[in-house]
Amino acid sequence: MEFRHKDLVGIADLSAGEIDLILSTAASLKEISRRPIKKVPTLRGKMMMTMFYEPSTRTRMSFEIAAKRLSADTQSLTVAASSAVKGETLADTAANLQAMQPDVIVIRHYASGAPHFLARRLKCGVINAGDGLHEHPTQALLDLLTVQEAKGRLDGLKVAIVGDIAHSRVARSDILAFKKMGSRVTVAGPATLLPPFLSDLGVEVTYSLEEAVAGADVIMMLRLQLERMGQGFISTLREYNQSFGLDLRHLEKAKSDVIIMHPGPLNRWVEISPEVADGPYSVILDQVTNGVAVRMAVLYLLIGGEKT
Amino acid sequence: MEFRHKDLVGIADLSAGEIDLILSTAASLKEISRRPIKKVPTLRGKMMMTMFYEPSTRTRMSFEIAAKRLSADTQSLTVAASSAVKGETLADTAANLQAMQPDVIVIRHYASGAPHFLARRLKCGVINAGDGLHEHPTQALLDLLTVQEAKGRLDGLKVAIVGDIAHSRVARSDILAFKKMGSRVTVAGPATLLPPFLSDLGVEVTYSLEEAVAGADVIMMLRLQLERMGQGFISTLREYNQSFGLDLRHLEKAKSDVIIMHPGPLNRWVEISPEVADGPYSVILDQVTNGVAVRMAVLYLLIGGEKT
Amino acid sequence: MEFRHKDLVGIADLSAGEIDLILSTAASLKEISRRPIKKVPTLRGKMMMTMFYEPSTRTRMSFEIAAKRLSADTQSLTVAASSAVKGETLADTAANLQAMQPDVIVIRHYASGAPHFLARRLKCGVINAGDGLHEHPTQALLDLLTVQEAKGRLDGLKVAIVGDIAHSRVARSDILAFKKMGSRVTVAGPATLLPPFLSDLGVEVTYSLEEAVAGADVIMMLRLQLERMGQGFISTLREYNQSFGLDLRHLEKAKSDVIIMHPGPLNRWVEISPEVADGPYSVILDQVTNGVAVRMAVLYLLIGGEKT
Repeated sequence: MEFRHKDLVGIADLSAGEIDLILSTAASLKEISRRPIKKVPTLRGKMMMTMFYEPSTRTRMSFEIAAKRLSADTQSLTVAASSAVKGETLADTAANLQAMQPDVIVIRHYASGAPHFLARRLKCGVINAGDGLHEHPTQALLDLLTVQEAKGRLDGLKVAIVGDIAHSRVARSDILAFKKMGSRVTVAGPATLLPPFLSDLGVEVTYSLEEAVAGADVIMMLRLQLERMGQGFISTLREYNQSFGLDLRHLEKAKSDVIIMHPGPLNRWVEISPEVADGPYSVILDQVTNGVAVRMAVLYLLIGGEKT
Repeated sequence: MEFRHKDLVGIADLSAGEIDLILSTAASLKEISRRPIKKVPTLRGKMMMTMFYEPSTRTRMSFEIAAKRLSADTQSLTVAASSAVKGETLADTAANLQAMQPDVIVIRHYASGAPHFLARRLKCGVINAGDGLHEHPTQALLDLLTVQEAKGRLDGLKVAIVGDIAHSRVARSDILAFKKMGSRVTVAGPATLLPPFLSDLGVEVTYSLEEAVAGADVIMMLRLQLERMGQGFISTLREYNQSFGLDLRHLEKAKSDVIIMHPGPLNRWVEISPEVADGPYSVILDQVTNGVAVRMAVLYLLIGGEKT
Repeated sequence: MEFRHKDLVGIADLSAGEIDLILSTAASLKEISRRPIKKVPTLRGKMMMTMFYEPSTRTRMSFEIAAKRLSADTQSLTVAASSAVKGETLADTAANLQAMQPDVIVIRHYASGAPHFLARRLKCGVINAGDGLHEHPTQALLDLLTVQEAKGRLDGLKVAIVGDIAHSRVARSDILAFKKMGSRVTVAGPATLLPPFLSDLGVEVTYSLEEAVAGADVIMMLRLQLERMGQGFISTLREYNQSFGLDLRHLEKAKSDVIIMHPGPLNRWVEISPEVADGPYSVILDQVTNGVAVRMAVLYLLIGGEKT
């Protein structure tokens, strides 16, 4: 199978077969990072540019490390210090970057759809590293890889996603991804943080953490954006923690081999207790390791060979 | 011909022959950026440092990409976070950088003459990436390369430079460069933005955009620094646009094969209309592409071989 | 002799023999930075991450240049823009970085002991680039190398360290280092800037610059943190300069071949006069050059070979 996309802008655009291809490529590239010499010449002479309009050190580092392990050069546009503050349009900034002849541009932007806009305009590849409340496809792919490693499969699982679904592009991409691969998704959170479109996505909705985790194979806790509190979405951290904070008691109702995931950074004692985050079921750090592998795979598939 | 300079601090120091050498070197290196593997080992083991005392993501990126395409290492001094804020003198900062044994230092500084000061003190090469209101030589060189590609020559052309000449080191370097290569330069702008020294530079001066573009082979629109407005140099953006904003009507009076240039970032609807910026005469993005090529050439000529 | 440490967190943990090994390794690697091609493939495929919780362009650059000269990849966590501001714990941030599989993490942190905390928790190597008021071991090592080059030995010397000892991790590491290598250390400064623990470290203490420099082989002037003034530690810069600013007069009382050191950045006319800083006895820029060499050596010894 061949990966025939110029861009990776959303899980919505990928077939199950394409997702499988990315995951199997990631699984085989992952081993490079364990070698004494963690580098292969595959993407030598290729250039990945990053354009981050929202701060995200971790995701940017993960992409840069992925590029370097494949010997690609990286170039980072620091947007705060850039022409964006001089009033340049996104289209002009992107056209200028493209004129310097990168092979791929990785963009994070606060506006939903910004990567799609660029993908249509630019000849080089575009990777969405998170756009507004829309998608964060490489996060969903690393989550899939982590589940596949732990469970040996991606179909027929019960996946519980818990927390601020409404403001989470991670949740949205994960829902799309797990559904495509044949799993069942249940979301839980306070009514103020569950968006109306959930039923369209074919997920089960509950306002009870207990219900969500009952019989779950995978529990994915989302980060609570603490600034939601001042906006009236939640009342107090204590109350949120009592209703939607995962602790050891909840795990008893899940499958005996349940795995616990979190996209990070953690708010310990808010959405997740330290006993769970650091416990034997937690695969949170595997997610980080797999983030590098998945981004290596995406870079390789997008710019690694001759497209026909 | 050999390039016998240690530094590139200004167009003023270059002969027409040396400019020709830089341009022909750039033209031959430019092809590297179009290859599937955009990298040659020419400057392997060399190190370019950047020291930017004014924010300029684009110019810094262009230099860094140029260095990487030639396999040089890059190291960037982020001045805001640096010892400059601890009261260190420019000479001490530069001496410290040199002690880490770079091959060349690229400096942008708000003080006119800062690169010349360093070039005299340092043994390593110094490249001026813009100093105060003085010079920005690599910008002028990329402009020359762009014109040469479009016109096949640099002599006997009418070059119109329009806008805030007084506060533009780009204008200054371009005037010097186009005059050296045998072209005629006309500048236009509001009286408040035309400096008194223009006649000494041998350029024609007009307060009319129409006059400036009449019969022009090349029209270079300068970015209006919007903060000039608050300082009384111009009254309103609307008025500025009506007098000095380039739109399709003006092009009718220029040569039929006129090209439109702009150093970026664009203020669309202020100094240039979108129809012109995106139209068939526009070579604005070619300028960006040529920026990388010219900087590759300058790096190669300064640190690429053994000096005698 | 083999270097059996996973980490370099403090001079306190090193034996004189291990220090000798680092210095001789640095002395042999130093020559690389003088070659036309300043790069060897020794650490190809290794990755050094930096995590700087305090701004320090110079030290970070020195580590990055050291890594690049050995062909290691570098990845910098910019902490201001990172998850630290989202309330993540240091342990979680470090665990996340480790999950991306670096070979070594270089950390500067405002809290004394932070690198030791990480060294115990992480499998990868940890290098302390300055922790609180505690240690800055690579600075002490580069100081030793500089003295050894100038004097041919490290034992039996009189080393005077002058200034704000109380707030200087450089002073603390240097005291430990010079004592271990068999030299005698005298510290001088205003009583408000001399900490109580000095006698435990086996150094001589004086409030007189003249006494400290009398017969000295090495004079190390510390940077006065100017913000100390507002806190009542010193009265005026002028008074500080009159009591503890080094000028040519003082050198007459030192050994005839005394060398003058300073960790930078300099406050000229405060703790050191320009005549001294730029004079023939000054080895201040040699310290900077040796900083790269010592960091190359530390990287090489920590991650360059197979550990048994």
